[in-house]
Amino acid sequence: MPELNFDGGRDGLIPAIAVDYRDNQVLMLAYINREAWEKTLATGKAHYYSRSRKSLWLKGETSGNVQIIKDIYVDCDADTVMYKVEQKGGAACHTGQRTCFYRRVQGDTLIVEGEPLFDPKEVYK
Amino acid sequence: MPELNFDGGRDGLIPAIAVDYRDNQVLMLAYINREAWEKTLATGKAHYYSRSRKSLWLKGETSGNVQIIKDIYVDCDADTVMYKVEQKGGAACHTGQRTCFYRRVQGDTLIVEGEPLFDPKEVYK
Repeated sequence: MPELNFDGGRDGLIPAIAVDYRDNQVLMLAYINREAWEKTLATGKAHYYSRSRKSLWLKGETSGNVQIIKDIYVDCDADTVMYKVEQKGGAACHTGQRTCFYRRVQGDTLIVEGEPLFDPKEVYK
Repeated sequence: MPELNFDGGRDGLIPAIAVDYRDNQVLMLAYINREAWEKTLATGKAHYYSRSRKSLWLKGETSGNVQIIKDIYVDCDADTVMYKVEQKGGAACHTGQRTCFYRRVQGDTLIVEGEPLFDPKEVYK
């Protein structure tokens, strides 16, 4: 297993960027600890560490929208990783948007781009 | 100025992902504090906070390889931003590689992809 510099983050957590393997669209950023890293490599599904729940998090465990790992890249300092994923359900964001980065800065405001692909109230009951 | 949740990170720092505005290739991840965010918006050039130097960092201040901001996206929790940039010099990484994410995981090893676009010894004297 490739060694990452978990001490390069804080609290043993480093960022993981998930991008769509087809077009490199950034879908989300979350954090991983060593356990999440090991689980991701072992299962081929993106795992993160939920800072709010303070526990390992299989992305899609509730929504079913798991992320199938196609490739993983490690940055120059080995303290950030990039997952190239196939996003099941088409949407990575809990709002139903394809990407968590759906708001564009325009002056002092944020413009919403795109439309939700699912209704969060239906998916997260 | 759009408000970010700097308390959503740690030590008032949140991650900023820089991607090439032409093809969404992820170039690097660094951290921003409020000052870096303000400077980025005010100047149209990507600023970060250097955790090693503990100071504001204009990306490219040494190498000349600045990042011209084309668009900025804010994620659903407002605790991560994405800069769409024009990367001057073509390379974002201090190694001379286009992207900091130039190593692909293959089993237990990391495979280097791509070639440096400049010689770091020449750029960082």
